Amino acid sequence: MNPTRNLLAIGMVALMGNTSASADDAKEEAVEYRKSVYEVIAWNFGPMVGMVKQEIPFDAEVFARNAKRMAVMAPMVAEGFIPDSITDDSTAKPEIWERWDEFQAGLDKLTEESAKLSALASQGAPLPALGQQVGAVGQTCKGCHDEFRKE
Amino acid sequence: MNPTRNLLAIGMVALMGNTSASADDAKEEAVEYRKSVYEVIAWNFGPMVGMVKQEIPFDAEVFARNAKRMAVMAPMVAEGFIPDSITDDSTAKPEIWERWDEFQAGLDKLTEESAKLSALASQGAPLPALGQQVGAVGQTCKGCHDEFRKE
Repeated sequence: MNPTRNLLAIGMVALMGNTSASADDAKEEAVEYRKSVYEVIAWNFGPMVGMVKQEIPFDAEVFARNAKRMAVMAPMVAEGFIPDSITDDSTAKPEIWERWDEFQAGLDKLTEESAKLSALASQGAPLPALGQQVGAVGQTCKGCHDEFRKE
Repeated sequence: MNPTRNLLAIGMVALMGNTSASADDAKEEAVEYRKSVYEVIAWNFGPMVGMVKQEIPFDAEVFARNAKRMAVMAPMVAEGFIPDSITDDSTAKPEIWERWDEFQAGLDKLTEESAKLSALASQGAPLPALGQQVGAVGQTCKGCHDEFRKE
């Protein structure tokens, strides 16, 4: 192994800081991580919604690319919800950990519907079919937000 | 198309806000997006570095999963750098847009090296080979940070 590269890798971790000095730090990091995952999902989902609402021109390639990204991102949400990770920056309700199985099932549904949307898009499904599946994904977002997110 | 679902989808976009009222809003959103992409990349890269440094136990499955995520995330960075998108929350230098081709080449290198890491990990490469490629990815991070990120 090239020692220079190895040192650089060590430096990267110091820069990017995914090691926690305390339980509080771990919670702050988990909140920042999951908010980032949601942000990236929203960035990609927004144009898909715009396309199915015909507010922006339909671009099948961008749609399929964004849907694929969402399908990869959706399963990344859960690990950001480490036990009792509520901070000032968080909008999570404590019910998440009191009713974890229900919350996890909601996230699984997001993953499942996102995978369906990606499959449809990659197969070149027509816009109405994509619109219906975008709605199904949106339902899974709304379901968890209504139950588990503070106003 | 199911109109109830369609309405929900409309609501989701309003909630998640990927439509911009102004150029300033667009810049704020772009900065938030790209910082989120970096955050998610760092969250996944950190444990890989920990494993190749043997600070945490090697888990081939987690390593391959995280490497695949990085390979999907790396090509997502560039679109967050819309022209002159520097805000109070940004650490980007104006040189990015003055030397865009060089910056883009750096991002392409990140994508390329991340794809190689994912390929190695999915093929079950041994830890030293993974360590070398983690170093190569870290080099691409460092290269751009040194040139294009404020201290």
